[in-house]
Amino acid sequence: MTSFESDYNNGAHPAVLKHLIETNDQQSQSYGFDQWSESAREKIRQACQCPQADIFFLAGGTQTNATVIDATVANYEGVLATTTAHINVHESGAVEAFGHKVITLPSHNGRMSAIDLISFLRAFYDDPTYEHMVLPGMVYITFPTELGTLYTAEEIEHIYKICKGYNLRLFIDGARLGYGLASDECDFDLAWLAAHCDVFSIGGTKMGALCGEAVVFPQGNAPRHFLNIVKRHGALLAKSRVAGVQFDALFTDGLYMQIGRHAIEMAMRMQRIFAKHGIKLSQSSTNQQFAELTQRQMDELSQYVSFETWEPIDSEITLCRFVTSWATTDAHLDTLRKALEKMSRETDRGAM
Amino acid sequence: MTSFESDYNNGAHPAVLKHLIETNDQQSQSYGFDQWSESAREKIRQACQCPQADIFFLAGGTQTNATVIDATVANYEGVLATTTAHINVHESGAVEAFGHKVITLPSHNGRMSAIDLISFLRAFYDDPTYEHMVLPGMVYITFPTELGTLYTAEEIEHIYKICKGYNLRLFIDGARLGYGLASDECDFDLAWLAAHCDVFSIGGTKMGALCGEAVVFPQGNAPRHFLNIVKRHGALLAKSRVAGVQFDALFTDGLYMQIGRHAIEMAMRMQRIFAKHGIKLSQSSTNQQFAELTQRQMDELSQYVSFETWEPIDSEITLCRFVTSWATTDAHLDTLRKALEKMSRETDRGAM
Amino acid sequence: MTSFESDYNNGAHPAVLKHLIETNDQQSQSYGFDQWSESAREKIRQACQCPQADIFFLAGGTQTNATVIDATVANYEGVLATTTAHINVHESGAVEAFGHKVITLPSHNGRMSAIDLISFLRAFYDDPTYEHMVLPGMVYITFPTELGTLYTAEEIEHIYKICKGYNLRLFIDGARLGYGLASDECDFDLAWLAAHCDVFSIGGTKMGALCGEAVVFPQGNAPRHFLNIVKRHGALLAKSRVAGVQFDALFTDGLYMQIGRHAIEMAMRMQRIFAKHGIKLSQSSTNQQFAELTQRQMDELSQYVSFETWEPIDSEITLCRFVTSWATTDAHLDTLRKALEKMSRETDRGAM
Amino acid sequence: MTSFESDYNNGAHPAVLKHLIETNDQQSQSYGFDQWSESAREKIRQACQCPQADIFFLAGGTQTNATVIDATVANYEGVLATTTAHINVHESGAVEAFGHKVITLPSHNGRMSAIDLISFLRAFYDDPTYEHMVLPGMVYITFPTELGTLYTAEEIEHIYKICKGYNLRLFIDGARLGYGLASDECDFDLAWLAAHCDVFSIGGTKMGALCGEAVVFPQGNAPRHFLNIVKRHGALLAKSRVAGVQFDALFTDGLYMQIGRHAIEMAMRMQRIFAKHGIKLSQSSTNQQFAELTQRQMDELSQYVSFETWEPIDSEITLCRFVTSWATTDAHLDTLRKALEKMSRETDRGAM
Repeated sequence: MTSFESDYNNGAHPAVLKHLIETNDQQSQSYGFDQWSESAREKIRQACQCPQADIFFLAGGTQTNATVIDATVANYEGVLATTTAHINVHESGAVEAFGHKVITLPSHNGRMSAIDLISFLRAFYDDPTYEHMVLPGMVYITFPTELGTLYTAEEIEHIYKICKGYNLRLFIDGARLGYGLASDECDFDLAWLAAHCDVFSIGGTKMGALCGEAVVFPQGNAPRHFLNIVKRHGALLAKSRVAGVQFDALFTDGLYMQIGRHAIEMAMRMQRIFAKHGIKLSQSSTNQQFAELTQRQMDELSQYVSFETWEPIDSEITLCRFVTSWATTDAHLDTLRKALEKMSRETDRGAM
Repeated sequence: MTSFESDYNNGAHPAVLKHLIETNDQQSQSYGFDQWSESAREKIRQACQCPQADIFFLAGGTQTNATVIDATVANYEGVLATTTAHINVHESGAVEAFGHKVITLPSHNGRMSAIDLISFLRAFYDDPTYEHMVLPGMVYITFPTELGTLYTAEEIEHIYKICKGYNLRLFIDGARLGYGLASDECDFDLAWLAAHCDVFSIGGTKMGALCGEAVVFPQGNAPRHFLNIVKRHGALLAKSRVAGVQFDALFTDGLYMQIGRHAIEMAMRMQRIFAKHGIKLSQSSTNQQFAELTQRQMDELSQYVSFETWEPIDSEITLCRFVTSWATTDAHLDTLRKALEKMSRETDRGAM
Repeated sequence: MTSFESDYNNGAHPAVLKHLIETNDQQSQSYGFDQWSESAREKIRQACQCPQADIFFLAGGTQTNATVIDATVANYEGVLATTTAHINVHESGAVEAFGHKVITLPSHNGRMSAIDLISFLRAFYDDPTYEHMVLPGMVYITFPTELGTLYTAEEIEHIYKICKGYNLRLFIDGARLGYGLASDECDFDLAWLAAHCDVFSIGGTKMGALCGEAVVFPQGNAPRHFLNIVKRHGALLAKSRVAGVQFDALFTDGLYMQIGRHAIEMAMRMQRIFAKHGIKLSQSSTNQQFAELTQRQMDELSQYVSFETWEPIDSEITLCRFVTSWATTDAHLDTLRKALEKMSRETDRGAM
Repeated sequence: MTSFESDYNNGAHPAVLKHLIETNDQQSQSYGFDQWSESAREKIRQACQCPQADIFFLAGGTQTNATVIDATVANYEGVLATTTAHINVHESGAVEAFGHKVITLPSHNGRMSAIDLISFLRAFYDDPTYEHMVLPGMVYITFPTELGTLYTAEEIEHIYKICKGYNLRLFIDGARLGYGLASDECDFDLAWLAAHCDVFSIGGTKMGALCGEAVVFPQGNAPRHFLNIVKRHGALLAKSRVAGVQFDALFTDGLYMQIGRHAIEMAMRMQRIFAKHGIKLSQSSTNQQFAELTQRQMDELSQYVSFETWEPIDSEITLCRFVTSWATTDAHLDTLRKALEKMSRETDRGAM
């Protein structure tokens, strides 16, 4: 069955797999010092236009978030995030496991608002009891968000400016970064992003790698002894080549952005297919599309395609997630289209 | 100046001090095994009608909360609390320091609603991704709440029943327990409370002691090796007599409840005084009263009495906290009354 | 240059790589529920003769150790290990990061002695102050040890019996398990091991995989909510297939033990080559050989082969590590042999 | 029965109790800002000749150690201590609970040796794998040590110089500081000590207070946001006056050192009494004396005086601890003397 469940339900992008195969017989250093990690770092520095960036490769997203946060804030500091943020909801308390509070702000369809942020900070430092509170040390945002939405350059600039004013570091979780940058609605590129935060990640797992996330400190501003911290988090790959080789492939000849653009193109076609059948989609301009379906629609569609139920909207309607990726093909979308057509015909018949 | 700032701004209740003096020359065991701790435990067991209760004395409130929570939930479990809960706002992340997430539910004037709780739990276990989330292991409520409000017996019963259904432990933080139980609006007593939760604390610091909080596991259900856990939290008093002697005094001849009733009586008089001058108070039937004052009113009153600013209501009005305790006297209230009368006269004059 | 630096300086074993290639185009479930993880689990259960075993795949060794320990001991419990244990020396405090003390016993060439263990436990529980101490909750041993040595079946039986008597769980870290089981000196097999501990790991990274370690709870005794704990440690692979496919290959047609036997054969040849040139080796019957070299010998050898300096023995002699693996060839050993011969000739010449 | 079990088995020193009584009726600020804490801080600054010192009062010793260490080292750093150090043995893992490893060096009758320290540090930074290890961030020593021994000024100077060379902070745990400074063998005073470390504590609980320890950062070098850290550790006293008043008394008219000298005088008399009866004492020049007793001697003595068994020496002899304090009187020592005389007579009789 055609699966739209996630962007991590397939293997490696062919070019990534090819690079794993062609490098397999070579020996290498370990723990991040292999030749492909070095090469990948150089390519990422060029793509970010940050010749001095410090770059590290970790295996997974949750460990990347927990490690970056723990390395960057003091032990008495917490991290500001929206209520829907991945670190607040779907990481089983990995941030708290290292002693840091996730301080929540409202989620505006996945996004943090600069107004909410500045209001929180002003009230916090006006409060005479703030010595009894967790000090905010970092702002964590996701790009794209967990709900497929995007920040504009202006919004990020605003947040980053507030961060600087309050001595907060800004961390942008880019687990699906390429799908955000490739969106038609994105008004900046990788180099701009790198210049507007203190640290960000470039997701590999959801962008064609088998595993691996890159952590970028764009101004060469990695915390002291970051490798020890990575190791302490159990996040230092012995055969670091497994991540290095894959990122080396992803950042060769613009593959990373190609993957992003392909998935976005597929997602936009998917939007039109849903729209044609009167299915309401929540706002998303990236590779995750959220459709509002009745139980009957879910039952019928799931005979042909698989997808994830996201959350109930009301007693009748459920939000369902349909995800595209580098691996999505025209044939997959045709299957979806036909399933919708069949569903519509039967609904019409039912209505007669 | 007369201070209504807090219930921890004075020394020990005279009877508590007297007991410290009269026992000072005796030698004792340490680490909780002194004779006064034993005696205090026995008196608390009687007051709670829990002959089998396990009881421990710790120095302070935040360490009591962090220790009880950490001892009672698994490391992958979090604790449910309202957004205004002391553990969520005013403990500098002590719960998170031991790796546990505070999962927040809405605050209804300080209270958790059973409806919110059951809704959260149903949605949680319906969510297919709950293996990526922090499991709820405990419900934490305060009695009275941080805002001076109370739960009814029915409300606590409802919450406790839900806890049992979902294998959650119920912890009632009683840092000001006596002021809650003594309120006219409270429809249960200490013994009832002890029968309707898994663990609760009896605050001493705010009820006439210099320091000290009692932790009660009413069914003799203290976690295994609880003393090691207390020690690990840096919360095991070497000269445990300092807490034991004070609680021994507080639970002799009903002193604990006397202290509570006196403070409540003073608080009710205070309410009437404010009301007479048209000052709006937020709902509170305990020893913390929250008055809505303009900046001008705050300035004038603070020439005669001191109090705490709690939080801004709008651009003109600030919520201010006035607290009574065992040490509040008629003279203190007279000072407040006169200050209000003077303020009213001047306002009248200003209005002419 | 021929490298004997480690067993993680090469790519994947050809059969592992082949399985990654042939499965790449298939879609799969994630987070451990993919078809290859299921298949690998079934094969490991058969190899262990533990039909009821709970098995999980994590990315790396340090995260495996930290996760298993944290999941298995209470928060007030520590883990007993030798002073040379990996968790005590080379994991940057990952165990302590989750709040657990590593309590050390003497290292007997890498091994823990049952006598030391029982002596410690008796003294511990005789000590009236043990409520002020970290309670021992687990024994951690490595097989083979960090120094290439092995435990006999009798030694493990003895330790496991002590563990049962004191309610300690026994965890055997098998990061190089196959190289230990394949040693001529090993007097038991995988099924025996699985029956003589509470949990053990099967290392993939050093045995031919690109990454991945299997955690086995042989009696189906995985801690409750183990997946949440894995996630909390940042150790849950989204594309779990990357580990599942590799272990599926490693446990097909006895590959895991073949890899072990090949490396041991190479190591024994290496022993003979060193011995022939009068180089003293520390006791090791596995794939890690430790040679005592002078600075001059190190300088000369390192022109032809690379290896790791382990630790200084005295002012003249340094212990150096030479490691074989599935990837070591006769040609590699010939290079070593020639380098030693050349060194000997020059030493003879120098001596004339 | 006369108890020599500990220096925390009695009430408060009369002068301390008197100050608690005479200040009881006054109102005060809380959380460290009360007038007596301010006064005590000023007196301690004078006693230390450190006008710029930052001083904080916490309730107990273990929480003081855990808080100071956690506030002063980075999360990836550990603390160097001897194997017999209180933080390594008797704090139930409070240091590890906050994620820090205790890295042990040999104990020389309780003391750390500068030679061991420098050897460890050189080897550590020579080790190419140190990025996989816990970085040393602090040296923790106790004065006097857990075994009643002392460091000379020269020894502390040597250790402090090494600390500076390796960017380690030096923390001196002075839970019994006064008993060390008052010893005849101590060749420095409080002001000298304050000039030769980065942070130290002044114990109150064992020196005549009911509870309370002072933390001194002599160069005004308290870590940023130290109050938040104290609160996060559950160590911030609401009624801080309980510690402030007591330290105010202890540092008035030289009481702290008087208490020390009295206990030392008593301990030296005790030494002579034991010596007269041929009882061997382990080296200690402070208020804790350790006597080597047979089981028979222990049985007979314990009819008249109580003491602590410390640890078995061999199958026949047990080390037993006899402690003096400000509360020890001539009458107590006479009881001990008579008990020893009676024991000797019966031994003589038994020998006839």
